[in-house]
Parts: sequence; structure tokens; C-alpha cells
Amino acid sequence: MTTAVRRGRPRNAAVDVAVVETVLRLLEEGAGVGELSMERIAREAGVGKATVYRRWPGKEALLLDVLRSLEADLQTPEPVGESVRDDLVLMLEFLRRRGLAKRSSAVLRAVITEIRSHPRLWRAYQDTVVQARREAVYEVLRRGMATGEIRADLDPELLADLFVGPMLARAVLREWQELPGGLAERIVDAVLDGVRPH
Amino acid sequence: MTTAVRRGRPRNAAVDVAVVETVLRLLEEGAGVGELSMERIAREAGVGKATVYRRWPGKEALLLDVLRSLEADLQTPEPVGESVRDDLVLMLEFLRRRGLAKRSSAVLRAVITEIRSHPRLWRAYQDTVVQARREAVYEVLRRGMATGEIRADLDPELLADLFVGPMLARAVLREWQELPGGLAERIVDAVLDGVRPH
Repeated sequence: MTTAVRRGRPRNAAVDVAVVETVLRLLEEGAGVGELSMERIAREAGVGKATVYRRWPGKEALLLDVLRSLEADLQTPEPVGESVRDDLVLMLEFLRRRGLAKRSSAVLRAVITEIRSHPRLWRAYQDTVVQARREAVYEVLRRGMATGEIRADLDPELLADLFVGPMLARAVLREWQELPGGLAERIVDAVLDGVRPH
Repeated sequence: MTTAVRRGRPRNAAVDVAVVETVLRLLEEGAGVGELSMERIAREAGVGKATVYRRWPGKEALLLDVLRSLEADLQTPEPVGESVRDDLVLMLEFLRRRGLAKRSSAVLRAVITEIRSHPRLWRAYQDTVVQARREAVYEVLRRGMATGEIRADLDPELLADLFVGPMLARAVLREWQELPGGLAERIVDAVLDGVRPH
């Protein structure tokens, strides 16, 4: 029984990996997302079209999994739960490392660029992967409001953007700009202290 | 003599406008940037290919002019030169209005999305149009450092991102998020004051 139950699983997981890796290979070879059909992906992965559709309802869902598999190497930080300042630094440092990874990986860059140019796909990426990271930031900010480390009179969404926005402006919008070590600390401390002289 | 000199100019300007408007029309009709060749643009505009190439060295330069023509309706703000805080609000308010314009104009959105998905084009856009706006922000910040309204111990590039980044995160990266009136003021004041309770 156990054998029978377990037999199918590695096979399905292997198919998932094969399909995701096929997409990565095709993108590495320079294929644009527009050229990739579910049919072609299935054929190149050596599996049936129905098998691919059973796992992913469409190409968009599949591409999100491709991006997730690429981002899985970048460990999302767990807040330590002591200093709110240090946890915010940890989260911005993750965005800095992700920006560096994107710069050094042509495939990661290609997948993100393609996802970025398809508004629905971009939105789905933001609503899942990015939203999960934002929730973690909100949680740290709410903790800071409770402990008195963060002003309680500001909207948490605005607060999150004050910290995250400056890092994203460099890491995502101006990819040729330096992302030096210590940038996360400098942003967090400047936003906490304010830029008006005391 | 004057007539002879002036005769050519309106004709050239008219050609420029006709070419830019042809690109806009083709994009409006749903053509992707990849499908637009200089040949096709010239043909559809009813001018010679050489005429188009005389004005623009390539499609990228032409597309930047198309985007510039779309953004020309959005008046770039002139700093008033009194309160640094108010001038920063003015500049962020411009970015907010630009974000709203992009949301309500399918063509502006299409051109920016296309430019965004071509790294070299995006870089050229940043190095010209966006850089000019950044220089204006740097100037206001330097003035603030001189008058004591802004801390003088922070890197101007970092400072600019602290103000501009949070607005861009919403206006550019999460286009479905609200851009309510008053957002520019709230960002500028929070960055000036800091988010740590005094």
C-alpha cells in the first residue's frame, strides 16, 4: 500500500521539475514567452499536453512557478523578532540580494522582464510572491507600532513603501545602479530618523 | 530669402509629427514594438525611409521621441525656490499625476510597457527623460542642505530615492494601487520627519 501510494509521487514531482526546467532551457536559448505554447513546452519536456494542463491551468501559472523556482535559491528572511530596525534591515537586505541575483542571472532577468511586460502576469506575481513578502513587512511594522519603535499615526502601506520603495527604485527600476553592501542599513536608518536635521 | 529658409522647416516638423503619430496609431491598433520596422513606419507615414533615418538613427531613438511626445502633456514642474518641502511635494505630485495619466491612457501604457521590456531602450529613457527630472530633485536637495532644511550627511542619490522611491513603487510597480490626492505631501513629510516617534 505504502509503496503504491508513494510510487506515483516522485513521478509527478519529476514531471513538474522536467517541465519547469524545459521552460528555463527554452528561455535560456532565447525563446520569448510569446513563442512558448503549452504544446511546445509539453513536447520539449517529453510529456503529454494533458499532463502539463493537469498541473497548470495555463502558461501564466506555469511561468509563475518558473520564477518561483528561480527565486527559491534566495532564502526569504525570517524576522528575528527583537529589534524592529534590524528586521527591516534584514528584509531590505533580501531585496538587495535579489537585485544582485537578477543582475548576475540572464535567465532570471529574462523571466522577470517577460513577466513584467505581461500586465496580468505581473499582477499575479505581485499578488502572490511579492504580497507574501509585503505581509511579512507589515507584520514587523505593526510590531514596531505596538512596541513604540514606529510611529502609530501612519498608514502601514505607506510605511512599507517608505522602506521598500527606495531599495526597489534601484534594484528594479535602475538596474545598472550599484547595490553596495550597507545600503539596507542606510535606507532603514534614514527613514527611521528622517532627513530633516534635528 | 526668409521665405526660402522658412519654407523647409514647417515641412520637416510636419514630417516629424506625421512619423510620431504614425507610430502612435500603429501602437493604438495593437502592434507590438517588435513588429514595427523603420520601413513599415515610413511606409505608413507616407514618407521615404531615408527621411525617417535622417531624423532618427534607429527605432529606439524614434520610440523615445514617441514617449516624449506623450509625456509632453504632463508639465514638468519648476521648483518655486522657497520651501524645499513644498518643492519636493511639487515633484512627487508630478510623478503621481504621471502615474494617473499612464493608467488612463492605453497608448501611454503600451509605449512604456514596450520600452520597459527592452533593456537598452529603458536605459536610454532613464538616462534622458528621467535623469533630467532627477537632476531637478538633486538641485532642490542641495538647496535644502545649504539652507539647513535637509541633513547634509546623506548621499544625495540616496536622499532622492527616499522621496521618489515610495511614489514610484506605487505609480510604476503596482499600477493597480490607488494614487490618492495628498499622497505626495504624506510621503515628503514622513521622510522629512522620520517614522520613529520623537
